[in-house]
Amino acid sequence: MTNDAATPDDESGSHKNDRADNLGMKVTPEGDFAKWYQDIVQKAQLAENGPVRGTMVVRPYAWRMWELMQRFLDDMFKETGHENAYFPLLIPKSYITREADHIEGFAPELWEVTRGGNRDLEEPAVIRPTSETIIGEMMSKWVQTHRDLPLLLNQWANVMRWERRPRLFLRTSEFNWQEGHTAHVDEQDAMEETLRMLDVYETFAVRDMALPVVKGEKTPGERFPGARNTYTIEGMMRDGKALQSGTSHYLGTNFAEAFDIHYQSKENKRELCHTTSWGVSTRLIGALIMAHGDEKGLVVPPRLAPHQVVFVPVMAHKEPKVAEECDRLAKELKALGIRAHVDHRDQKPGFKFNDWELKGVPLRIELGPRDLEGGTVTLAQRLGLDEKVVIAMGDLAADVPARLEAYHDFLLTRATEFRDANTKQVDTWDEFVEQVKTGWASVLYDGTDETEQKIKEATSATPRCIPSDFPTAEGVCFVTGAPSAFGKRVVFGRSY
Amino acid sequence: MTNDAATPDDESGSHKNDRADNLGMKVTPEGDFAKWYQDIVQKAQLAENGPVRGTMVVRPYAWRMWELMQRFLDDMFKETGHENAYFPLLIPKSYITREADHIEGFAPELWEVTRGGNRDLEEPAVIRPTSETIIGEMMSKWVQTHRDLPLLLNQWANVMRWERRPRLFLRTSEFNWQEGHTAHVDEQDAMEETLRMLDVYETFAVRDMALPVVKGEKTPGERFPGARNTYTIEGMMRDGKALQSGTSHYLGTNFAEAFDIHYQSKENKRELCHTTSWGVSTRLIGALIMAHGDEKGLVVPPRLAPHQVVFVPVMAHKEPKVAEECDRLAKELKALGIRAHVDHRDQKPGFKFNDWELKGVPLRIELGPRDLEGGTVTLAQRLGLDEKVVIAMGDLAADVPARLEAYHDFLLTRATEFRDANTKQVDTWDEFVEQVKTGWASVLYDGTDETEQKIKEATSATPRCIPSDFPTAEGVCFVTGAPSAFGKRVVFGRSY
Repeated sequence: MTNDAATPDDESGSHKNDRADNLGMKVTPEGDFAKWYQDIVQKAQLAENGPVRGTMVVRPYAWRMWELMQRFLDDMFKETGHENAYFPLLIPKSYITREADHIEGFAPELWEVTRGGNRDLEEPAVIRPTSETIIGEMMSKWVQTHRDLPLLLNQWANVMRWERRPRLFLRTSEFNWQEGHTAHVDEQDAMEETLRMLDVYETFAVRDMALPVVKGEKTPGERFPGARNTYTIEGMMRDGKALQSGTSHYLGTNFAEAFDIHYQSKENKRELCHTTSWGVSTRLIGALIMAHGDEKGLVVPPRLAPHQVVFVPVMAHKEPKVAEECDRLAKELKALGIRAHVDHRDQKPGFKFNDWELKGVPLRIELGPRDLEGGTVTLAQRLGLDEKVVIAMGDLAADVPARLEAYHDFLLTRATEFRDANTKQVDTWDEFVEQVKTGWASVLYDGTDETEQKIKEATSATPRCIPSDFPTAEGVCFVTGAPSAFGKRVVFGRSY
Repeated sequence: MTNDAATPDDESGSHKNDRADNLGMKVTPEGDFAKWYQDIVQKAQLAENGPVRGTMVVRPYAWRMWELMQRFLDDMFKETGHENAYFPLLIPKSYITREADHIEGFAPELWEVTRGGNRDLEEPAVIRPTSETIIGEMMSKWVQTHRDLPLLLNQWANVMRWERRPRLFLRTSEFNWQEGHTAHVDEQDAMEETLRMLDVYETFAVRDMALPVVKGEKTPGERFPGARNTYTIEGMMRDGKALQSGTSHYLGTNFAEAFDIHYQSKENKRELCHTTSWGVSTRLIGALIMAHGDEKGLVVPPRLAPHQVVFVPVMAHKEPKVAEECDRLAKELKALGIRAHVDHRDQKPGFKFNDWELKGVPLRIELGPRDLEGGTVTLAQRLGLDEKVVIAMGDLAADVPARLEAYHDFLLTRATEFRDANTKQVDTWDEFVEQVKTGWASVLYDGTDETEQKIKEATSATPRCIPSDFPTAEGVCFVTGAPSAFGKRVVFGRSY
């Protein structure tokens, strides 16, 4: 996906009656990935552009995936002691300016509200681009003593940031996300929280999205505006680019100073809180599409599939029992907690097969008069099986759950192998330039803004992170020959 | 709660260290209900005012109730075939003006966004006050033939409407809600949907909120701007006023005409869709507070209680096993799906008892060394039991679920009796004036705007609805003596 590709208008347009088209496109680092992405978003009916610049309409099939993402994440947030709350959409403009780096980062991206109830507002407000400031203001009221800490909050909300080149799910001016905001007695406790939530994101990516991620710290130039340290999980898409899939920030006392978040310590001293924030967004739907999809369309990992199994009755117009039997079996699977669906639409089976392949349903079960006679069904797996398999109806309840688990593992292994095959340790400029065309390069470099800038201008690649699990390494910068920084190799790649 | 009461500032302010205060206020139609409401919202840590006029910070305890409300409602929406989607926050101003009644109703309440990315927008946008217009625009793209109908959508979202007299939960400039939007082939199908969702709201109110409601149609003057018919559920608060708790609208073809929502019929004709919309909001938290609360604080119906049972260890500092045993029993209840919580805070039991009464927890279980010895616990119910009861530990798993159900029924009966005692059929002006001071009056009237206006100016009472289950009745208007309208009595009351 090149930077100068589609404007919002290119992504909208009519998609009537084309839902069962086979995308028929090569999905590799070399293919026309941007076009493929655009097609899949439109044809699988995932999203469209809204009328106001950069906004997005998320259609039911994609929103259901987001709901499932929310459920798994929210369960983990609650298990780790967090409570959800809700803070206002509108923030007084003056709040945003209180933390110097924060306003520098967000000033160009603000959406401003100047009128309400047919009159000018006394103070202009901005639509939250993120909520550190307004939550900081409330924390300063709520936190009094060390007994009130840690204060562990999260909110599920919409935010808005001006985007010069909007792209559905990946960069939209409005997006939905969760933002965790916590306050702690000291750096150690806040840093533990920062890394704990990064681990939660990693668990989610691997366990629910079948997406292997590289976890690590961002270099200083890539930090969140106002953060002391920013941590990230980075996933590789099937074009070899990186997608930042979740970030967790240790904010030090920056926001506590700006918003007066103090507490009385056990020793009766007035101390500043240390705060964190962390978030993931509907961008994850973009990650899901680009990490797993193929020339036939979406490939949805089972834990996030709106329908895990779709039954397609065959010859139902001739033999009505076929549809009844599908309903019965689907009900049996539903009772086991499987999201099963029967496609009763008045369409030909071939149309339905294509449609559910396009929509990435993990398992498709066909049931016709002959199956009915034999007490079997015919099962097709979206990926990983060369042929359809015939299964006795009585075995489905045991087969399907196990098959979904195995399918998840298959997708995770496939994505991991792809990433590993497209990640390379390099030590020369020429190797680097070649490697980041189609994947990630792990390098020693001097860690300066100048070097990062030079690399970016020449190759579009940026430092993705300093991976937590990389071994210690030192040497010379592959660009300048100066001593390397960070005591480790750093992963570079082009990104979204 | 009088109309000229509290400005937003009155409701905020410090509430530090006062969380266990007994409200100690008389909660009756005659008491200072407005002050009581304000106190409870603050002291039970439910919400505070945000910095931008009329906005609200919803604190975790109240947000958890909203999450539970969302879960029960969303399950019913899905069961009735609806899918969730998400539409943009910002709507081009021109959209709002396309339906004449709609713009007339909403024009004074709009919040306008004029700048983004440091420049003026080409067309000003408004923050959605409701989404009929933008969803209508998308429906016109998505609906092609009768096979695409009914189109059953819902969204959970925040909306903004300018409020002259904001009141936490009841009237806030930003609020969270769900808005269902559906399109149908004809009036009959759309009307069935409108009434089906009204029934869903009634079920929710009774089953989950223990709130008896009067269900019926609004008189023409009280319709949603742009609706052909508006239906409502109305609950009685403990001051005898009415709270509109959910509305469902048959929109006719008004929005279909304005947004070009057509379909090709089976007979191959181009037809207009008939649409509906329906919604409930965080206002329901206000209803919950005012329908059940008392002089000790909140009373939360069990299905919506963040904690259904709270264990308070007694003398835990002397006998650590007391806390362990609480944890064990709580775990046992959790395994049954009960939301049980152990209060391990370093505070005296008396403080905790008050705190959980203030927060309206249905059941409180005390466990001290003597209980430990006897293998019993001491249980206090927030309402409806004169004395604490002693229960064998082994009986808890059977006792608690049954007790929660019975407690729900108790609250529902209590609220129903209160409502019935404060609703009266009246036929003279003097009786009416007296009745609506403390409750609802059911009357025959001529149904004219003039009469409604006259009643409102003299008494603040407005028509709440024409109840679905009222018998046919005709006669003369109690105000003008003209023939009565609607073929039924109509319920009047003061409202929020």
